[in-house]
Amino acid sequence: MRVMIFVLLSLMWCGFTGADEGMWLPEQLPQIGERLAAAGLETSPGSFANLTDHPMGAIVSLGGCSASFISPDGLVATNHHCALGTIQFNSTAENNLLTDGFLAGSRDQELPAAPGARVLVTVRADDVTDRVLSSIPPDADGTARFTAIEQAKKELIAACEKTAGHRCDVASFFGGSLFRIYDQLEIRDVRLAYAPPSSIGKYGGDVDNWMWPRHTGDFSLYRAWVGPDGQPADPAPENVPFKPEHWLRVATDGVAENDFVMVVGFPGRTNRYRLASEVEHAIETEYPQQVERLTKILEIIDHETEGRPEAMVAYAAMSSYINNVLKKSQGMLAGFARSDSVARKQALETDLVEWIHADADREARWGDALPQLETFLEEHFATGRRDQIFGLLGYLQMWAAPAKGYRLARERELPDSERSPGYQERDMAKTRGFLAMMARNFDAQVDRAILGQVFEDHAALPESVRLEALDQWLGLDGEVDPAKAIASRLETMYAESRLVDPEARLALLDAERSFFEASDDPFVQLAVAMYPTLLKLEADKEAFEGRLLEARPRVMGALLAYQQTTGSEIYPDANGTLRVTFGNVTGYVPRDATVYLPFTTAEGMAAKATGVTPFDAPTRTLEAIAEKDYGPYVSEEIGSLPVNFLSSVDTTGGNSGSATIDADGRLVGLLFDGNWESMISDWDFLPKVTRSIHVDVRYMLWVLDRIDDAGHLLEEIGVAPAFREVPPGPRHQ
Amino acid sequence: MRVMIFVLLSLMWCGFTGADEGMWLPEQLPQIGERLAAAGLETSPGSFANLTDHPMGAIVSLGGCSASFISPDGLVATNHHCALGTIQFNSTAENNLLTDGFLAGSRDQELPAAPGARVLVTVRADDVTDRVLSSIPPDADGTARFTAIEQAKKELIAACEKTAGHRCDVASFFGGSLFRIYDQLEIRDVRLAYAPPSSIGKYGGDVDNWMWPRHTGDFSLYRAWVGPDGQPADPAPENVPFKPEHWLRVATDGVAENDFVMVVGFPGRTNRYRLASEVEHAIETEYPQQVERLTKILEIIDHETEGRPEAMVAYAAMSSYINNVLKKSQGMLAGFARSDSVARKQALETDLVEWIHADADREARWGDALPQLETFLEEHFATGRRDQIFGLLGYLQMWAAPAKGYRLARERELPDSERSPGYQERDMAKTRGFLAMMARNFDAQVDRAILGQVFEDHAALPESVRLEALDQWLGLDGEVDPAKAIASRLETMYAESRLVDPEARLALLDAERSFFEASDDPFVQLAVAMYPTLLKLEADKEAFEGRLLEARPRVMGALLAYQQTTGSEIYPDANGTLRVTFGNVTGYVPRDATVYLPFTTAEGMAAKATGVTPFDAPTRTLEAIAEKDYGPYVSEEIGSLPVNFLSSVDTTGGNSGSATIDADGRLVGLLFDGNWESMISDWDFLPKVTRSIHVDVRYMLWVLDRIDDAGHLLEEIGVAPAFREVPPGPRHQ
Repeated sequence: MRVMIFVLLSLMWCGFTGADEGMWLPEQLPQIGERLAAAGLETSPGSFANLTDHPMGAIVSLGGCSASFISPDGLVATNHHCALGTIQFNSTAENNLLTDGFLAGSRDQELPAAPGARVLVTVRADDVTDRVLSSIPPDADGTARFTAIEQAKKELIAACEKTAGHRCDVASFFGGSLFRIYDQLEIRDVRLAYAPPSSIGKYGGDVDNWMWPRHTGDFSLYRAWVGPDGQPADPAPENVPFKPEHWLRVATDGVAENDFVMVVGFPGRTNRYRLASEVEHAIETEYPQQVERLTKILEIIDHETEGRPEAMVAYAAMSSYINNVLKKSQGMLAGFARSDSVARKQALETDLVEWIHADADREARWGDALPQLETFLEEHFATGRRDQIFGLLGYLQMWAAPAKGYRLARERELPDSERSPGYQERDMAKTRGFLAMMARNFDAQVDRAILGQVFEDHAALPESVRLEALDQWLGLDGEVDPAKAIASRLETMYAESRLVDPEARLALLDAERSFFEASDDPFVQLAVAMYPTLLKLEADKEAFEGRLLEARPRVMGALLAYQQTTGSEIYPDANGTLRVTFGNVTGYVPRDATVYLPFTTAEGMAAKATGVTPFDAPTRTLEAIAEKDYGPYVSEEIGSLPVNFLSSVDTTGGNSGSATIDADGRLVGLLFDGNWESMISDWDFLPKVTRSIHVDVRYMLWVLDRIDDAGHLLEEIGVAPAFREVPPGPRHQ
Repeated sequence: MRVMIFVLLSLMWCGFTGADEGMWLPEQLPQIGERLAAAGLETSPGSFANLTDHPMGAIVSLGGCSASFISPDGLVATNHHCALGTIQFNSTAENNLLTDGFLAGSRDQELPAAPGARVLVTVRADDVTDRVLSSIPPDADGTARFTAIEQAKKELIAACEKTAGHRCDVASFFGGSLFRIYDQLEIRDVRLAYAPPSSIGKYGGDVDNWMWPRHTGDFSLYRAWVGPDGQPADPAPENVPFKPEHWLRVATDGVAENDFVMVVGFPGRTNRYRLASEVEHAIETEYPQQVERLTKILEIIDHETEGRPEAMVAYAAMSSYINNVLKKSQGMLAGFARSDSVARKQALETDLVEWIHADADREARWGDALPQLETFLEEHFATGRRDQIFGLLGYLQMWAAPAKGYRLARERELPDSERSPGYQERDMAKTRGFLAMMARNFDAQVDRAILGQVFEDHAALPESVRLEALDQWLGLDGEVDPAKAIASRLETMYAESRLVDPEARLALLDAERSFFEASDDPFVQLAVAMYPTLLKLEADKEAFEGRLLEARPRVMGALLAYQQTTGSEIYPDANGTLRVTFGNVTGYVPRDATVYLPFTTAEGMAAKATGVTPFDAPTRTLEAIAEKDYGPYVSEEIGSLPVNFLSSVDTTGGNSGSATIDADGRLVGLLFDGNWESMISDWDFLPKVTRSIHVDVRYMLWVLDRIDDAGHLLEEIGVAPAFREVPPGPRHQ
């Protein structure tokens, strides 16, 4: 079947659908040359197809965010919001880098990135579909299918990671129709070279998040460091800056309206090929519940941190994360309300089913494909609410640290290769890093309040999906008032537990199974008590995913075959792997009689300034704007300094920090957000209104040069500073 | 001095300042021919200068709103919101013209306008400055000056109104530098021919009020009726439609972007020449207090009418009025916060004072002009809060009816010519009409709640400005809790008073002084008790106005002389007299990277529809839009049916209902609102963002033709109906 799909893909790439839709594999670019040329790419797309050539070789992943090398000495450009964890990690109440920003005057002043931070340089991507699919036994059930695929992936990864300093991953495409292995150099000494104050880097904050017009200087600079031998190494004084083979040159002249742009990065996840019923479930159940729940959690954080600046700082990243998810869920609901996504999907499925039934061969092959998938999904929807409620548990340390520790202890009883993914030696650094970072962002009062809410939400679920072990632990026997019982239980637990000490939590990572099982710490006991249940949930989930890995490729196969008849083209859903999307710098019409222009200006930024967060533009910036002191970074076209710009490229979460490059492969900005109208683009692409938001490279250069006196960084990236004569005044008043 | 001012005026009219700023007297147009030509007027402006020629002769006042004749049989076009009182007056719970709209199938089905409704046709405007100013005795104080001017005006008006069916008014220009008398034919049989349902005529309601993009079909049609002799007459069956000398032809092809447009109407009041200190007082004290107070009153109305549809209908107009004032005050504050109005005015005043001091003659003439005006104003500001609180008393009938009645009874003891303005025989019809209309919009519970709030606000004033007589009447001796004392006093009063009966209130208009003074009705007793205090307030106000009438012309004289040196041009502040403003159909930039286009479309209207007021577009309209069934009213330029459009003309309240005409004098729309950014245009004109909002004549025609089957009205205005074949379905579902 795989061969057929590839044939279909090649055919379809020659067709046309919506404008700039598509998160393409670099390898696909030569096949959509006509579209690229139509968008304004004058050079051959072949130069973009090879992952290890320029400019693709300059693109890196930060794991969750995208980035790019912009100097021969390993300087990495990404978003301020991607470096937020690091900025926060290095901040204290007295020396708050969030509010003050940070500039390393020299390389030895660069600050360590947050634990677990990585720069991942892709060196190879190979098709491993045959190897993965051939491992599945005939007539495998869900669990067997899942296990076989995981086992095959694990073996592929283990073989690949035999090379020291490399990290490998197997990604699945088209719902499990294709598999590819990605081999990445894993640089683990990452340092912060520059971050603007949040009054620039986070200007507009949650108010402006997803919004246009936008004025956010959402960029920061990391540097990748390696051992003296040029290979990845743990952070050490003798380390040296990494010398990447490729780095992006900076286009100091930026872009103009209608210019061709590409965005290269690692979009996280899209669901463009989901069934109408899945979209409906998201609209009618999942997102509304999410909105209600997260609103409540945010209220809890606000309430519990009120008047306690340290607690506020500790939960700033979590609040920001939740706010982002919340606003996205709300935007999705608003977007779906305006769109005909479900109706279009239903129509397509009706046509597809008709087309299948119209032919005996097709009927034999795919006749039950959709019903089969629908049946699997319905079972899954039943437990969706519970999975949603438990989604935050990983961030609640009194729960997460012992649960993770005990699981690790149990997994360690197995040989490394037999352990579950995420619990192997290769995962330990990341786990440690995450928990170490979390340890600094902890406040028992807030942790307890949120955990209490999670438990209360669980107690309100129907009995059929509630976890008996948790009910028992909390003493919920159907008689007592759950809220009161939970509150009193948690009060005792937090009072008695030694895990409120961050060191005690971190120590659990290395503790033995026997330590956990003998412990009198209530949270450790909770972890042990919940262990069988959590394993069972995981097994259920794996069985479900195994069933999906059977059903989705069948539906996708039918859909691809059908779409060939309609001439639609196809690109795989985002899955965290390197993708290229292209389009043009362009505004849009958000509603009747209203046009959004593609560039915002420094004056527009100043016009929003109120002096109060998130519109607390630095005085120094406002003064420079009042003097229109833009130097060479001014855009003649818009008669001002461009701050952000819009383009029609197709991006999603994970693309944050992605390099925005012009047709010559030069850096013209950084992707950092989508617009409000594109909120449902994870599910459905709307060419007229789907836009991505970029910070303009000219604004980045101006901030570095005129506002923050970072001339040495400019010189490193090959840009001559224009403002050396400006006397350094007090910064960021 | 007057001659000098006129010379200055002629000089300044040749200069240029902001784009389309200016509410010009028609007579001024020939003097600003260059500006008109620059805006795109190709014909000679002379044709617009004569009040009684076409097209000016077609423009009429409704008293508070503007309108125009659009047929030889006296059909009058104005805004739906200008006809709201009439629509409401003819509505009952069973037959609600607000929700259903109204169409007279034939002329004899037309409904009477609300009592007091008038169509005023200007027939003459003469300069009477010499006559007025020469009446002021030498060394007159404020009261003497005010009285002399009022007396002169009264005599002029009395002489003018000797002609039956005429109504005259003397208006003051440039703060009392110039006076003109306006002679108007007063047509007093006014009938409603057509009103759309509020789901068209008030679409967007208070949510969209002042907003762009806008989709309001804010138009209605009246007809002027006269006696069989063609002269104004009381409503009577034998009356015939008025045959105006001039009426506007309808431009079925409408306007396009950048087209020249004029708006002709009766703008109410602007303060473009106020001092910086007056603007500051408005920003810092007056508007913030207004916002707080009106918000409270609206809450009271909402609360007291909850669940009582009849009370809701009764207070719909008042709520709408208060909402409008409230939103305007809020917009003013927002607008001032974004503008540099005060700084610019201060700079101008600094320059002016410097210029005065630089010359001994000027110093002698104007050296103390500004300080004198500032002194007068400061005294006035002290009582501003009280005046604001009492501003609503005229709408509270239990207070207003006996107060008005007793005042009338006292005034009637004087010969008609000696009575105060507003209490002469000539004013009686209007007074009666107003009170009769108010009588239908009354609910004792709401009246009492608002009156209680007014009294409470009064009780919270500093003692220096509180009215002793009111304190006494309410038993506020400084010991009792004012809120409780007022509530208990009002409870008794409403329970005891016969005035809760509308007939009893109306009867007070004809009652004798002795009736009031012997009455045991508590509200009548309150009116008698407050009478001396209210007279004293009026006398104080007149003395203040008299002082202003001395000081303002001096400051204006200095300003005009100074502005001559800077080349600025000058037009008088709006004062309710006929004005012409011109400009172009054009959008604007409300903020960075955002452009508002000048036309909204039917599809944009449909996109706002939610089914819930104020976005409850009629099903029939939505269906026609879904079919793009626009007939000849479609605009090729925008590819749709235009609903509203923006222009750069300079308008204000009172302009509502004004004809928007093209360079050929044809009707292309009706002015009905200003945009949010123009909110402070009463004080300061901002050429880049000050815009007026018009309902497009093509939308009016389409609604009449396609939606409401008013073919006979279309034929009357010379437009061939295009939708005769559409079967009349159920209207406005």
